[in-house]
Amino acid sequence: MPSAPDHPLPAVAARFAHATRVAMPVAQELFDTIAAATGDGVGMAREPYGANEQKASDLLEAKARQLSLEVTRDPFGNLYMTLPGADRQAPGWITGSHIDSVPSGGNFDGLAGVVAGLTAVATLQAAGLVPPNDLTVMGVRAEEASAWYAGAHGGHIGSRAALGILPPGELDSAINSRSGRSLREHMTEAGFSPDRVQQDHGTIDLARYRGWLELHIEQGPVLERLGLPVGVVTAIRGSSRARSCRCTGAYTHSGAVPHEYRSDAVLATVELVHRLEAEAARVRASGGDLTYTVGKLFTDAGLHSITKVPGQVDFCLEYRSQERPVLDHMTGWARSQAERIGAERRVTFDLGTFSVQEPATMDPGFREALSLGAAALDIPAMDIASGAGHDAQDFVHAGLPAAMIFVRNANGSHNADEAMDLADFELGTRLLAWMVAGQPR
Amino acid sequence: MPSAPDHPLPAVAARFAHATRVAMPVAQELFDTIAAATGDGVGMAREPYGANEQKASDLLEAKARQLSLEVTRDPFGNLYMTLPGADRQAPGWITGSHIDSVPSGGNFDGLAGVVAGLTAVATLQAAGLVPPNDLTVMGVRAEEASAWYAGAHGGHIGSRAALGILPPGELDSAINSRSGRSLREHMTEAGFSPDRVQQDHGTIDLARYRGWLELHIEQGPVLERLGLPVGVVTAIRGSSRARSCRCTGAYTHSGAVPHEYRSDAVLATVELVHRLEAEAARVRASGGDLTYTVGKLFTDAGLHSITKVPGQVDFCLEYRSQERPVLDHMTGWARSQAERIGAERRVTFDLGTFSVQEPATMDPGFREALSLGAAALDIPAMDIASGAGHDAQDFVHAGLPAAMIFVRNANGSHNADEAMDLADFELGTRLLAWMVAGQPR
Repeated sequence: MPSAPDHPLPAVAARFAHATRVAMPVAQELFDTIAAATGDGVGMAREPYGANEQKASDLLEAKARQLSLEVTRDPFGNLYMTLPGADRQAPGWITGSHIDSVPSGGNFDGLAGVVAGLTAVATLQAAGLVPPNDLTVMGVRAEEASAWYAGAHGGHIGSRAALGILPPGELDSAINSRSGRSLREHMTEAGFSPDRVQQDHGTIDLARYRGWLELHIEQGPVLERLGLPVGVVTAIRGSSRARSCRCTGAYTHSGAVPHEYRSDAVLATVELVHRLEAEAARVRASGGDLTYTVGKLFTDAGLHSITKVPGQVDFCLEYRSQERPVLDHMTGWARSQAERIGAERRVTFDLGTFSVQEPATMDPGFREALSLGAAALDIPAMDIASGAGHDAQDFVHAGLPAAMIFVRNANGSHNADEAMDLADFELGTRLLAWMVAGQPR
Repeated sequence: MPSAPDHPLPAVAARFAHATRVAMPVAQELFDTIAAATGDGVGMAREPYGANEQKASDLLEAKARQLSLEVTRDPFGNLYMTLPGADRQAPGWITGSHIDSVPSGGNFDGLAGVVAGLTAVATLQAAGLVPPNDLTVMGVRAEEASAWYAGAHGGHIGSRAALGILPPGELDSAINSRSGRSLREHMTEAGFSPDRVQQDHGTIDLARYRGWLELHIEQGPVLERLGLPVGVVTAIRGSSRARSCRCTGAYTHSGAVPHEYRSDAVLATVELVHRLEAEAARVRASGGDLTYTVGKLFTDAGLHSITKVPGQVDFCLEYRSQERPVLDHMTGWARSQAERIGAERRVTFDLGTFSVQEPATMDPGFREALSLGAAALDIPAMDIASGAGHDAQDFVHAGLPAAMIFVRNANGSHNADEAMDLADFELGTRLLAWMVAGQPR
């Protein structure tokens, strides 16, 4: 429950607070019925193009029909639920998020954004408001494909297919980790049309929309630690990733060989990782946005020994930043440091290819409107970067401006313990409803 | 072939050079016949208490009988071949090394020391010299047990059994990696008497010996890099080893969680390993003897991911030094740094137990005699620490003073490519023969 404000709410704020409260049973029912229908015993398991994702989609569609929305699907199973606006010709908002989940995941990562869209519709209806233009709520398929499909693909299948930015080859190179069959086969089996996937030719007519709005749980701990229910996203961090780095030295006797004759792959890699951390800290200290992660680092289990100087280390590097120049700087820094340390320590670093995902900056006008709205509605909020990827980035990359609302969430995401308080969700949804209602003052 | 000296050799030097040259066919024959009998296709495979170790022992015994030596065996299969001295009552030298090898190993690691003993006997005989006291050549069993037997044991089975410093329980806890059966069973099957192993009650009467001398190939590259054929060992480095260290942090999202909220096990472990390297370098720079090796370091292959902050790292630490205080300092330093870094970085280090192997200092008088001998015989030599363990350390730990002669060797040891030049072996053996002959000037 949001706490009572310290001063009387102005009329607009009071109206939206009341209407959202009236609409909340829509959210409660959707969260409950979908959770009951799509669990795997540990958490949620709404596999892309699987039965549970379809069940969730069907429950959302049924609710949309109850709310008298116009319902369509595209050839990739994405669901569009539209509330007609006062002017149906001019571009309106499209809002939503993804329906699917990771295996044994939580109920809110993704689903909260679709439910928020329908709850915002119910809020407008409760307030007796007709939006100035059409409001479409989208339930996206297969955003979490990376958690279910191995092989070469970039995830975010539903949004990228609809936006015409999914290379069709990914449907064949994405291999289901359990069945061993391709995403193309699974999409076909689910009754959809992978053959309709075309690069540069989406099924969404972007001219119909002024922008994408996405409510999502925060997947980090920042709002929780700072005691704020809502965040206005500044940008979705891009990334630069080297998946298969290797340091090659020489295995030799750990007692008999003096240090000056060694080619120690562990000590060399440790120096590189440590120096990159120092540079990342320097970049952050001077105002740059940057995370730096070495998620894997390992000697060869078949050859390593406590009495051998280690001759090989495999590792990966990941940088994330809202700023492409920061990614480029750190990528170049890694290469130059690897070269220098390799020469000094008689080892060879092969960092392989860095694959770069562009940052997606949220629309400044949308962000400003959301911040003003949070103030007008007396919702404590802060600016926050998104470290994780979201469908919003695909809309930005396709050319549609976007904004995101984060809702406080405990215990991270991609696990069954994610914990969003419905009172926080209500505040985020109230802000969303105010935004799509035309930002009334 | 050793090159001719630049100045005329004094009489003693010339006599030993000539006699060793005459004796060298003994060495050549033993190396050749044993190599031919005990290979595994890749290199040598003289498994402790296996058929090939016995074949090698039998060939050595046959040569000893040709040289008219007195031959005995102890209950553990160790071979003793004695040349009677002028005074058979006073203590004499015992020299030798081990007969066994690692799997696919070289022909010289161990065997060279036994062959050197017999070749030294042949040298004395060729020179017409009777040693002042008995000279015993020992062929030790099962020094390389660690390469063949898993489970809890300390290797060096033959020497430790004979010296009464082998805990009998190791015969049961040492498990053959191929057969899965205990060392006790294999010893029994080979015809020996594991039941005779008693702590504090060896079968060697130490009062009969004045000291142990062991010729061995160098297992590192130092003599080769410095262009010297022979080294006089200062000490066998002891070690302090933590086999199972773990850093526990928390897995979390690599993009969504800011660094100040992370518990990154890789970056914490990297800082620890890097700081320990810096301290080890400082200790060496101030004159301490120390090697520092992190032979294993790995994230959990079942849980790690390029997009997760790593929550766990396993690693090991090994220090080796001739100086026990250096080992103690580095062990304490590791613990204090782990505590400090753990607190700063919100992770927990569990370094587990450090198991300490005492350094074994070579007898200063023996070392001085060997250095004088090298000078008198015009053999280029240097002082050198032994990083690897040898039977000599067991004699020291049992209370008998010892010394070692290292012979230059390329490509390290414990592999089929080890490469000792017989000309270098001849120089080392000449020094050994001079030593056991009573160090004539």
